[in-house]
Amino acid sequence: MLLCRPFLLRRDNLLMRANRILFPFVEVRYNGEKSDSPKLSAIPDDRAPHMSVQPVLINGQWQPSSGSSTFQATNPTTCKPLAPTFPVSPREELEHVLAAADSAAKTVRGWPGSRFAAFLNAFADGIEKQAAQLVETAHEETALPVSPRLKDVELPRTTNQLRQAADAAADGSWSLPTIDSKTNIRSMFGSIGPVVVFGPNNFPFAFNSIAGGDFAAAIAAGNPVIAKGHSAHPDTTRIFAETAQEAAQATGMPAGFVQLLYRTSHPDGEWLVGHPHVGATGYTGARHTGLKLKAAADAAGKPIYLELSSINPVFILPGALAQKGNALAEEFTGSCLMGTGQFCTNPGLVVVQKDASAETFIDAITQNFENAAVGTFLGEGVQQSFLKGVDSLQQAGAILKTGGKAGGGNGYSVKNTLLTVDGATFVANSEALQTEVFGNGSLIVVADNVEEMLAIAETLEGNLTGCIYSTESGVDDNLYDQIVPTLRSRVGRLLNDKMPTGVAVSTAMNHGGPYPATGHAGFTAVGIPASLRRFAMLQCYDNVRPHRLPELLQDANPECRAWRMVDGEWTKDDVG
Amino acid sequence: MLLCRPFLLRRDNLLMRANRILFPFVEVRYNGEKSDSPKLSAIPDDRAPHMSVQPVLINGQWQPSSGSSTFQATNPTTCKPLAPTFPVSPREELEHVLAAADSAAKTVRGWPGSRFAAFLNAFADGIEKQAAQLVETAHEETALPVSPRLKDVELPRTTNQLRQAADAAADGSWSLPTIDSKTNIRSMFGSIGPVVVFGPNNFPFAFNSIAGGDFAAAIAAGNPVIAKGHSAHPDTTRIFAETAQEAAQATGMPAGFVQLLYRTSHPDGEWLVGHPHVGATGYTGARHTGLKLKAAADAAGKPIYLELSSINPVFILPGALAQKGNALAEEFTGSCLMGTGQFCTNPGLVVVQKDASAETFIDAITQNFENAAVGTFLGEGVQQSFLKGVDSLQQAGAILKTGGKAGGGNGYSVKNTLLTVDGATFVANSEALQTEVFGNGSLIVVADNVEEMLAIAETLEGNLTGCIYSTESGVDDNLYDQIVPTLRSRVGRLLNDKMPTGVAVSTAMNHGGPYPATGHAGFTAVGIPASLRRFAMLQCYDNVRPHRLPELLQDANPECRAWRMVDGEWTKDDVG
Repeated sequence: MLLCRPFLLRRDNLLMRANRILFPFVEVRYNGEKSDSPKLSAIPDDRAPHMSVQPVLINGQWQPSSGSSTFQATNPTTCKPLAPTFPVSPREELEHVLAAADSAAKTVRGWPGSRFAAFLNAFADGIEKQAAQLVETAHEETALPVSPRLKDVELPRTTNQLRQAADAAADGSWSLPTIDSKTNIRSMFGSIGPVVVFGPNNFPFAFNSIAGGDFAAAIAAGNPVIAKGHSAHPDTTRIFAETAQEAAQATGMPAGFVQLLYRTSHPDGEWLVGHPHVGATGYTGARHTGLKLKAAADAAGKPIYLELSSINPVFILPGALAQKGNALAEEFTGSCLMGTGQFCTNPGLVVVQKDASAETFIDAITQNFENAAVGTFLGEGVQQSFLKGVDSLQQAGAILKTGGKAGGGNGYSVKNTLLTVDGATFVANSEALQTEVFGNGSLIVVADNVEEMLAIAETLEGNLTGCIYSTESGVDDNLYDQIVPTLRSRVGRLLNDKMPTGVAVSTAMNHGGPYPATGHAGFTAVGIPASLRRFAMLQCYDNVRPHRLPELLQDANPECRAWRMVDGEWTKDDVG
Repeated sequence: MLLCRPFLLRRDNLLMRANRILFPFVEVRYNGEKSDSPKLSAIPDDRAPHMSVQPVLINGQWQPSSGSSTFQATNPTTCKPLAPTFPVSPREELEHVLAAADSAAKTVRGWPGSRFAAFLNAFADGIEKQAAQLVETAHEETALPVSPRLKDVELPRTTNQLRQAADAAADGSWSLPTIDSKTNIRSMFGSIGPVVVFGPNNFPFAFNSIAGGDFAAAIAAGNPVIAKGHSAHPDTTRIFAETAQEAAQATGMPAGFVQLLYRTSHPDGEWLVGHPHVGATGYTGARHTGLKLKAAADAAGKPIYLELSSINPVFILPGALAQKGNALAEEFTGSCLMGTGQFCTNPGLVVVQKDASAETFIDAITQNFENAAVGTFLGEGVQQSFLKGVDSLQQAGAILKTGGKAGGGNGYSVKNTLLTVDGATFVANSEALQTEVFGNGSLIVVADNVEEMLAIAETLEGNLTGCIYSTESGVDDNLYDQIVPTLRSRVGRLLNDKMPTGVAVSTAMNHGGPYPATGHAGFTAVGIPASLRRFAMLQCYDNVRPHRLPELLQDANPECRAWRMVDGEWTKDDVG
């Protein structure tokens, strides 16, 4: 998954200088620099009326940022900057945010889950009222289709996640309340403190820093959230944040419970995730940035849950390929090109064995890729990174079958791209050939034989998913059994006869996996209740007086709603 | 918790050179260096017959180490080196160990929990047969009392832990099997791969690297273990390893399932925990060493579970102190001096409010400490570190009330030590005044008022435990309610009216807490089943064919033993 690089402007740059001369009525908080070099041509007319800098949400108030830098998002279809201007928050602003979050965390500590549920439900209701504006804005900022995506898939998924998280918060079973009545020792997962959420570019709703899965999980676990919006869709994020703040006020949450910054410098981001007031961090995005945040959080002993990159290997065993190669070519094409391939679970690596079926399969996909429409990328950064990735793969020995060139679609786009490589080359250059090429492309590895397929599996890094296609007849079973022990330890979700795209919000989902796909293979970013436990600490009560215990650990189970492990058995009964 | 520094000898040092001249019949694997400088006086007669170097356990074989350095443990009571000589394993030896562990992990992947249970139970049985030898050896190496400690407390606890872990492995509920029947997505915690266990000095049985809690949890979760013994009790560890290997053979475990190295260099230890073949690491020991291992594991994206240091703050509120100060002085003395204070949960910091009761309390403890017998430390390193810590506290403003000098007991010992400091000084120098002084000492902070008590709580680092004593009458309740929101987020286990020593192996125990007490506040090192989940990864199965699923995720619940979450509810029933 990639971050894109929208326009980043200093207040003293040409655009801003010009603006203050041409539109002195526009609210621009300027930090004392001189304006003497207007370049009027740099200001498209349609942007001027919006040049006021958007405020940030700190401690319950929308207030001007104290920062001196701004940025604008870009419309990926027109490749032109969008009007709204957003601030880059300086360190001192982060300090205010942290103090407010710390105060909010203390206020809500010990509140029953129903309080957090009330907020989450009110927020989901509010989002539905803003649906039209959200869809329009997100479409403009991301080029993702209105339908069948933003309006009818991603927005309902987002409100559904918030409501599932609300149910989990109200129920309390997520916290694994555990009571040992003989020793009078009781424990549960409890709030960990303010959670910083960095959202990615590719799900402006469902993974939005102030509305998506990490946000919902962190709140449901009883924590304030400090949202760091993604720079590719700041205006979408603004609408969510306004709606969240209204819901917070309506449901009596404290002032610093939900806060929003649009952007920080990288060093300030690293400082933020290691700050003593921070409980934990959720980050979804580019690997190189994520690893810097991880190093900072690790050094401070702060949990950080990362979703970085994944090429999601798909093994198609020879029997399955012979039996239904054409159908698999169709299925693969759909999975790989859907959403212009901009999914964390996009099938970026396919492993087949060299035979006639493999040749036919590759030819069919090549044809499909050339015939299929080319989508628009989320931004210029995705395009640049894609082309760089294709170049890296070729330098490591991959052969370009089709695509690999910019264009083919509206705005930022690259032709649907397929590369192949032989198994020996892959094994020899496995690190380089596992470069994630985020977008509408994939690499097919053609292994000489079964042994090479196994050797390929052995070289794989940690991934979110791993798929194996095999026949029903049993001819692939021996090979399946040989691949699984290796693949199982390298992926969070193992699939049979199914492409990896599509991440159901299920109690049993694991959207996680070994490093470097994520930072810890014990946790999932999707799936309630498990995703809540990322943002919690284990809290034990030893001989604590009954009335001082959290409600979920008292002898009486409130309204018998929560599952609790009492003396080693799960029950909804009272103790004793 | 501190590591001690036993003798570390190069093979070419004086002792070894002399030995090869005087006792040429002794098996010494020598790497080609000349012997020309005997210093016979360096060799006590009683050590000579044992100078053969103990073998290491690699890939199912006890074999000579290829290393060129050795070490000996020390009898803490006599302060003299013990006879057995143990090798320091070089990098190449670690590579053999890793290869064998990787192979074993692949062999046992997917085995039912009953296989691991059989091993753990056989091992517990074997330990009981070796009880006399274990107790005698551990007593010699650690100076811990035979009774009431090694024989009748720690050894039964150790076998009890192994059997509890066996029950958990056989049952399977620990893995939180979760089935979403509508989407056919299923998940559970599964083995993570070879686990490296570094045991501490202070529990030669219950936390031993090849018999203690981390070992039991790692095995029960289905992983091979690479044990790195603690250098203070290598011969105790040898006996455990021999017994473990016998149990492994008797129960059909693969060759590299349990392996033992006595010692590595620090760089090799860091290399080990980040190795691709390693699944996770468990470390209990000194903070500075633990943090180096953490940095290495973090950089490689490998989970590491650390138990580092904790001063376990005890807040005694004014009402409670006035009501039962004398009884509390007794209770505290017992908790602080038990086992010469060498417990992770030793109460190293007591916070009281300045009044007449506090003065009486401090005087009573001073008296108790002067009257109580002084125990023997686990080693010279503990003594050195204790004295250094007392010095640090004094330099930071603490006042020595009693003790603080070496001696008073047999062998390595320091007089029972009490320091005090005023609240303002503590808040001003809180980092230095939170230095862990591992052993029979404690620091009492006398706060001027309630506000200062709260300020003290705010400065606390992460700890394993936090205690609050308050009256039953309610006069302390307001202050209790003010302290708890701050203290709760800083400790893993919150206690009322009870000292922190004593860590029950309970389903609800949390022997963990926020950094720097541990590396991740979501996990516990003690308490089954939760401690097993440290050494597991979340494994999801999406559309995987029924017969290929792990037994615990198939529709039929085998013998209805395991709790499974089916469609959001815990049940022991079959699916459908």
